[in-house]
Amino acid sequence: MDNRENKTSIRELGKYGLIDRITVNARPANSSTKSSIGDDSAVIDPGNSLTLVTTDLMLEGIHFNLIYTPLKHLGYKAVIRGISDIYAMNGTPAQILISLGISSRFTVEMVDELYEGIYLACEKYGVDLAGGDTTSSLTGLTIGITAVGSVEKPYLVKRSGAKPNDLICVTGDFGASFMGLQLLERERKLFEKEKVTQPDLSGFEYLVGCQLKPEFPSDTLKELLEAGILPTSMIDVTEGLASDLLQICKSSNTGSRIYYSRIPVDYETSKLAEEFNIDPITPALNGGEDYELLFTIPLNDAQKAEQLKNVKIIGHITEEGSGSYIIGDDGSEVAISAQGWEQKNQ
Amino acid sequence: MDNRENKTSIRELGKYGLIDRITVNARPANSSTKSSIGDDSAVIDPGNSLTLVTTDLMLEGIHFNLIYTPLKHLGYKAVIRGISDIYAMNGTPAQILISLGISSRFTVEMVDELYEGIYLACEKYGVDLAGGDTTSSLTGLTIGITAVGSVEKPYLVKRSGAKPNDLICVTGDFGASFMGLQLLERERKLFEKEKVTQPDLSGFEYLVGCQLKPEFPSDTLKELLEAGILPTSMIDVTEGLASDLLQICKSSNTGSRIYYSRIPVDYETSKLAEEFNIDPITPALNGGEDYELLFTIPLNDAQKAEQLKNVKIIGHITEEGSGSYIIGDDGSEVAISAQGWEQKNQ
Repeated sequence: MDNRENKTSIRELGKYGLIDRITVNARPANSSTKSSIGDDSAVIDPGNSLTLVTTDLMLEGIHFNLIYTPLKHLGYKAVIRGISDIYAMNGTPAQILISLGISSRFTVEMVDELYEGIYLACEKYGVDLAGGDTTSSLTGLTIGITAVGSVEKPYLVKRSGAKPNDLICVTGDFGASFMGLQLLERERKLFEKEKVTQPDLSGFEYLVGCQLKPEFPSDTLKELLEAGILPTSMIDVTEGLASDLLQICKSSNTGSRIYYSRIPVDYETSKLAEEFNIDPITPALNGGEDYELLFTIPLNDAQKAEQLKNVKIIGHITEEGSGSYIIGDDGSEVAISAQGWEQKNQ
Repeated sequence: MDNRENKTSIRELGKYGLIDRITVNARPANSSTKSSIGDDSAVIDPGNSLTLVTTDLMLEGIHFNLIYTPLKHLGYKAVIRGISDIYAMNGTPAQILISLGISSRFTVEMVDELYEGIYLACEKYGVDLAGGDTTSSLTGLTIGITAVGSVEKPYLVKRSGAKPNDLICVTGDFGASFMGLQLLERERKLFEKEKVTQPDLSGFEYLVGCQLKPEFPSDTLKELLEAGILPTSMIDVTEGLASDLLQICKSSNTGSRIYYSRIPVDYETSKLAEEFNIDPITPALNGGEDYELLFTIPLNDAQKAEQLKNVKIIGHITEEGSGSYIIGDDGSEVAISAQGWEQKNQ
């Protein structure tokens, strides 16, 4: 995984040496960041806003495989994973805290790479690295991500506000990250079996990018604000479009109908799905890690929403008890179901 | 570790079933908790206060051994670990978010036990469980803890405010948790080697309690406030008295002198240290996990501080560049050093 020559062991640097090294370039950009690394807690001045806090874990072997995941990309993705939950409340992320559990096979240079990606994402999304924890681990890499943000009270959007007849909207497209993962896994197995050293990812660069270094459509939130659209409910699509739509419906006590033909799927996703002999709707509905927004808007806002480049209306909310169905081109209805524990966490 | 008969597998319940089960009894007690579990982020209204956020990881095999750690105690300790960083800023903890990575050997009932302890500590310290994440893990149990609290601006106490001639104060006593761990480890080894089934912990119940189910001296912060004492700097002692004192000195650009004879050590700690043939000052200085407060106060507040039952003055802050030393009864000076990475994370 890494050439150990000329590398520095973490033991050599020590815990506090490592923290100093990681944080030497930390420069808070947000006025709400009153104190960052180097104390017991991050100190945040939220002014008159609500404070949003969210936490996630990324575990080696569950959420990432270092065989094909560059550490810099992983750091970038960890930040996206954290801030996507803040955006999903219609908030603005401002701080992130990263906790690392690192086993002895990691060198200081590897931690540097990880933080390069963390800082890059922080810069791109205007977030300050404001704290964390570093500890050794017995096996593998553990990343704990805490994101903090703010939202003014009237603009807070929860999962629970969807009403019957509201339109269901999404950003971007779905299934790309999942298909990117399938491709990387296929190439890894080829490598292990036949010692093919160079993975063949050509033609599927978008899918691999979605899996390894996702971006979040934060601009769409600004565009919605400018268009005068306040979503009635919102969630970030990380578990899968189906599962996350069901979360909205559960929290809002509603049903839903979405249209097969309206679910955005990229050309590369369709093409690779064909190679794998699966219907592209399966990764689109159940793949997860899309880092897109799923939200509902009042019917009256339909025209305004249709003007927005990155937004697509895929269905509508229905009464409580009416279930959630995907409607085929022939009018057939198939119940939407979330995936179980085992499948989800492959 | 656990009898699997009549136990429920987590797969059976599913991720969201597990979250529902964990959170069914969550009842926010703090007015700042505007929305807790069941959305993308916790929503917190800090009013006019500063928001404090801190994050920690607890990894199986590094921070705890389930052979002798009841899951309920572990949950309790996880909360203490989180909120102690909020108290260390002179803040009041109000919310906690818990992320779990759970391997397939854990049953739903085991997760229930863990949360029993989490809720118990939340109730005792007035904290709301406000969110988290649940995921599978390949090996062992991973606990990510994010604690949120608040403090009014004038009362914020950082690590960096200590001035020469300030007095160094501590709460409670030191080394007990570490010696408790040594005892538990000794009994575990006896069990593994000689199949002694019943560990002998008699006479050392305080030490075992400090290790397995620590409490935090939050009342002392109230007493300091009532006495009109605002510490100039503060830290929670989790890494070890020596290491945490050096953190204060580093942040404040000072040196320090503490007195061997003034460092509070419990009778049980001394007694067990004798059995292990070590000077009790070693666990007291370097043991860690004490969950006590270390803080500095202006010289003028000495008399007021001496009135407080749980507070002891152990030394004073000195000029930058004067180093940090522990002074023996005979006047000898020994430099205080922090432990390295490897020793710390046994």
